[in-house]
Amino acid sequence: MYYIGIDLGGTNIAAGIVSDSLQLIAKKSIPTGKDRDYTEIIEDMAQLSHELIKEAGLTTEDIEYIGIGSPGVCDRENGILLYANNINFNDVPMAKEMQKHISLPVFIENDANCAALGESLAGAAKDVSDSVTITLGTGIGGGIVINKRIFSGFNGMAGEIGHTLLVFDGELCTCGKRGCWEAYASATALIRQTRAAAEENPNSAINRLVDGNLNLINAKTAFDAMRLGDHTGIKVVDQYIIYLAEGIANIIVFLQPEKIVIGGGISKEGETLLKPLRKAVKERLYYKKEDVPQAKLVTAEIGNDAGIVGAAMLGLQGKI
Amino acid sequence: MYYIGIDLGGTNIAAGIVSDSLQLIAKKSIPTGKDRDYTEIIEDMAQLSHELIKEAGLTTEDIEYIGIGSPGVCDRENGILLYANNINFNDVPMAKEMQKHISLPVFIENDANCAALGESLAGAAKDVSDSVTITLGTGIGGGIVINKRIFSGFNGMAGEIGHTLLVFDGELCTCGKRGCWEAYASATALIRQTRAAAEENPNSAINRLVDGNLNLINAKTAFDAMRLGDHTGIKVVDQYIIYLAEGIANIIVFLQPEKIVIGGGISKEGETLLKPLRKAVKERLYYKKEDVPQAKLVTAEIGNDAGIVGAAMLGLQGKI
Repeated sequence: MYYIGIDLGGTNIAAGIVSDSLQLIAKKSIPTGKDRDYTEIIEDMAQLSHELIKEAGLTTEDIEYIGIGSPGVCDRENGILLYANNINFNDVPMAKEMQKHISLPVFIENDANCAALGESLAGAAKDVSDSVTITLGTGIGGGIVINKRIFSGFNGMAGEIGHTLLVFDGELCTCGKRGCWEAYASATALIRQTRAAAEENPNSAINRLVDGNLNLINAKTAFDAMRLGDHTGIKVVDQYIIYLAEGIANIIVFLQPEKIVIGGGISKEGETLLKPLRKAVKERLYYKKEDVPQAKLVTAEIGNDAGIVGAAMLGLQGKI
Repeated sequence: MYYIGIDLGGTNIAAGIVSDSLQLIAKKSIPTGKDRDYTEIIEDMAQLSHELIKEAGLTTEDIEYIGIGSPGVCDRENGILLYANNINFNDVPMAKEMQKHISLPVFIENDANCAALGESLAGAAKDVSDSVTITLGTGIGGGIVINKRIFSGFNGMAGEIGHTLLVFDGELCTCGKRGCWEAYASATALIRQTRAAAEENPNSAINRLVDGNLNLINAKTAFDAMRLGDHTGIKVVDQYIIYLAEGIANIIVFLQPEKIVIGGGISKEGETLLKPLRKAVKERLYYKKEDVPQAKLVTAEIGNDAGIVGAAMLGLQGKI
């Protein structure tokens, strides 16, 4: 059998077909057109699925189900997307609406949870039962996997790690709270911190790397400046790693997963990020005796397709 | 059948017998004498168990197992207490040592986890699958129960909620980290905050309540001053509730348990504490739409005996 995964984002809808051996055999994406009515967007998602099935040389009968990952809060049991602010969906009956256009079971799930499931079943956390996957992007997505299943708490909303506290009474977060971890450790936050440092230190390599146009700063710029031995770049990265480490230490102290998987663009820094991060996290653990194993920090393996792959695996929880 | 629970503390060893209907039918306590060799302390624990069995008119054959709750970090599988700083136990083979004196299976578990299990199986969280119990005392103990079993993570150390971050680079905690939640929201922290406020405001009701002897301030003093309408008391309690609320909001945002049970002396304030706390927590949640249920905040029901009762239930996980 095959499984379809759809990653519904604010910019694009990406969809793919995953085989029984957990390989992504086909994928395709279209613009979301997020200001349209949800009925049109969902019709496009169904249309995209039909196209994928055809291009893969399959029929609907070969597909076991469709899994949809979306930002926001889902009512899984009833297939309703309760709330997703970046696509302005409120109480949208996703499953029912999809099934008007395609006769397949439909599962829905938060996109960060899908990414965590993908890493657990087919990626960097394949070898452990319990893992937490964080995605450093516009915000910080978080997904908890316990015993190879998404753990979403009694109301389906667990894992919003980006909105735990880092700085008491700190920076205002997009969620309306103050001091959230994602306001300090997301890619957006790193870009903001890099820009502020460049403004304060106009002679830094950061400024040279973007030809003085601070709007060109991205989440890689401070790391690039650091690699050039630039003092400002080193300072920004060091501080960012401390912000990241505090939040990761919180996850460990609270939940003790066997692996913490870090995804998103920044994770491409690999060991450049992980090596100092592991050290900073270790300094922040409650108990550090060598005879007790600690969570391993690794980078994501599935990468950009984690949303599709994870969504395609929603129906496989507890089966593999 | 009957089950023995032992709560091994820095000051006293408390033990009790729990019946099949989860009632505590006998209890007894002795001083720990914590500076003695562990062999002597464990012999006393076994002796106490024999006495309890006799006084309850039972024999060893009526007892299914002994459960021991201890501060610190346990290796459950091998019955070893790896580390407990307040009784200076390191790598102590608890189960094996107990069995030199009493022929019964022995389970060991962190004491905060025992309290959480007790509340889940026989107390305030009896009606839900997933709960988190926090105990506000010298520190903040935390125990996670998922699906009616203690969740302790892959290395057995999950739930150390007191050592998650509240204030970035904040007050030094007894664990060596800075800014831990327990450094702001434990009973010890509240006493420290009350004392500091009394020093700054010598005319406050706090000072009158302790006849000017600030060493007499306890975790109830600020609440008592507040009840007298004292401005300083109100301020201390308001600030303390915010500290408490931030940490509880973290638990909810991350794990979304159905109930959060608050134990320890401060919980005796009941609705005086819970009412403003619920409001402050709600303001700090990531998603507050009324159509999604949120964790209920309640106070502990088992109280002082939670450690004994929870330890006595260690072998019942997954069975009731």
